[in-house]
Amino acid sequence: MHISILTFDGFNELDSLIAYGILNRIRQPGWRVSLTSPTPRVRSMNGLVLESQSSLAEASSADAVIIGSGIKTRGIAADTELMAQLKLDPARQLLAAQCSGALLLAKLGLLQGLPACTDLTTKPWVQEAGIEVLNQPFFAQGNIATAGGCLASSYVAAWVIARLQGDEAAAAALHYVAPVGEKEEFVSHAMALIGCIAEPLPTC
Amino acid sequence: MHISILTFDGFNELDSLIAYGILNRIRQPGWRVSLTSPTPRVRSMNGLVLESQSSLAEASSADAVIIGSGIKTRGIAADTELMAQLKLDPARQLLAAQCSGALLLAKLGLLQGLPACTDLTTKPWVQEAGIEVLNQPFFAQGNIATAGGCLASSYVAAWVIARLQGDEAAAAALHYVAPVGEKEEFVSHAMALIGCIAEPLPTC
Repeated sequence: MHISILTFDGFNELDSLIAYGILNRIRQPGWRVSLTSPTPRVRSMNGLVLESQSSLAEASSADAVIIGSGIKTRGIAADTELMAQLKLDPARQLLAAQCSGALLLAKLGLLQGLPACTDLTTKPWVQEAGIEVLNQPFFAQGNIATAGGCLASSYVAAWVIARLQGDEAAAAALHYVAPVGEKEEFVSHAMALIGCIAEPLPTC
Repeated sequence: MHISILTFDGFNELDSLIAYGILNRIRQPGWRVSLTSPTPRVRSMNGLVLESQSSLAEASSADAVIIGSGIKTRGIAADTELMAQLKLDPARQLLAAQCSGALLLAKLGLLQGLPACTDLTTKPWVQEAGIEVLNQPFFAQGNIATAGGCLASSYVAAWVIARLQGDEAAAAALHYVAPVGEKEEFVSHAMALIGCIAEPLPTC
C-alpha cells in the first residue's frame, strides 16, 4: 500500500505532517507513506524545507492520495501543466483533501455532486467552484473525503487507515497520538466523525 | 522574540511541527520561530528529512525553547557532548518539553521538585529519573511546561504564545488550527488546560 501526501510550495505543515505521522503508526511490510512534491525539496508557508519522498507520477499510482493545504493552492489549481500530472481516480484510489486541498479536487472535477469541508479562509473559493461547504470538520462519501481546519488532518489520516487497515488500526493510531488523559474521548470522537455522511441535515 | 524547537535525529513529526505551525500564526516583526537541530539536516523517526533553521547555541539564547520528542531521546540524554551545548535557564527562558523531551529537562536538572507530563511509552523512564508523572496532557509551573501525547503539542504552543503575546493571541492561533465546527470547544478546552497547575490533586 502506498499513501501519498501531496505537499506543494507554501504548504501548511500541520496539514501534511500530522497525516504523515499518524499514517506511519501502521508498521507493516509494504505499507509506505510518502511526502510527494513536484520538486526534490519543498518549502512550507513558514519557510521550513523538507525533502520530497515521491513524485507526482508515483502519487498518481498510489492507493491513497491526501492533498495537503497551503498558501499557494489557488496558483497550483491554475497551473495546468502541474495539474495535468495529477492523474487521480476515485475508482481505484482513496482521495482526501485537507483544507484548501479541496480546491484541487474541485478543479479535477472530483467533487461533482458532493459537498465538501474546507478551512474558513478557502470556503468562499470552494463555494465559487460550485461546491457546497459543510460547517463540520470531516466528510466522506465513497472513496472521497475532505476535511477543514488544520487539526482535522488527524481525521483524514484515521479515515485512510480505517479504509485500508480497519477500524481497530485507525483507533490504535489515534490513541497513540491523542493527548494523555484525553485519549478515550479523542478516539471515540474521531471514530464517530470518520463514519459521518451528510444527509439533508448533516448528522455529525 | 526567538522560539527554538529542538528537533533531533529520530524526531516525532507531530511534536515539533504542530508547535512550529501554531507558533508561526503570530505575525509580528521580531517574532522568529525556528527548528533547531545539531546538524544541517535532520531525519524524523519515519524517514522525513528537514533542513535545520538554527543551532543549539542559538537555542541556548532563545526566549523560549520547546524540546521535541523522538525515538532516540534516551540516547540524546546520554550524549554528554550534545547535552553540554544546551544551556537552558528558566530564569531567562520559557522551557517546554513535549513527550520524551521531558527526559532532557530531567537530565538537565530542570524538573527538580516538579511533576511532569510525558507520553505513555516514556513514562517509566521519567519516573525512573525520580519525576512524578501526571495523567494529564499538560502541566506548567513558572517558566517550565511539559506535555504528553503528540497532539498535546498544540497546548505547548498555546502556552508559549499566551506567555509571550497574551491569551488573546493564543486563543486566535488555536482557533485558526482547530477543526471546523469544533473551534470554540477546542479553544476553550485548550485555554483552560494551559492555565492548569497541579495541586495535591491535579485540578485539570
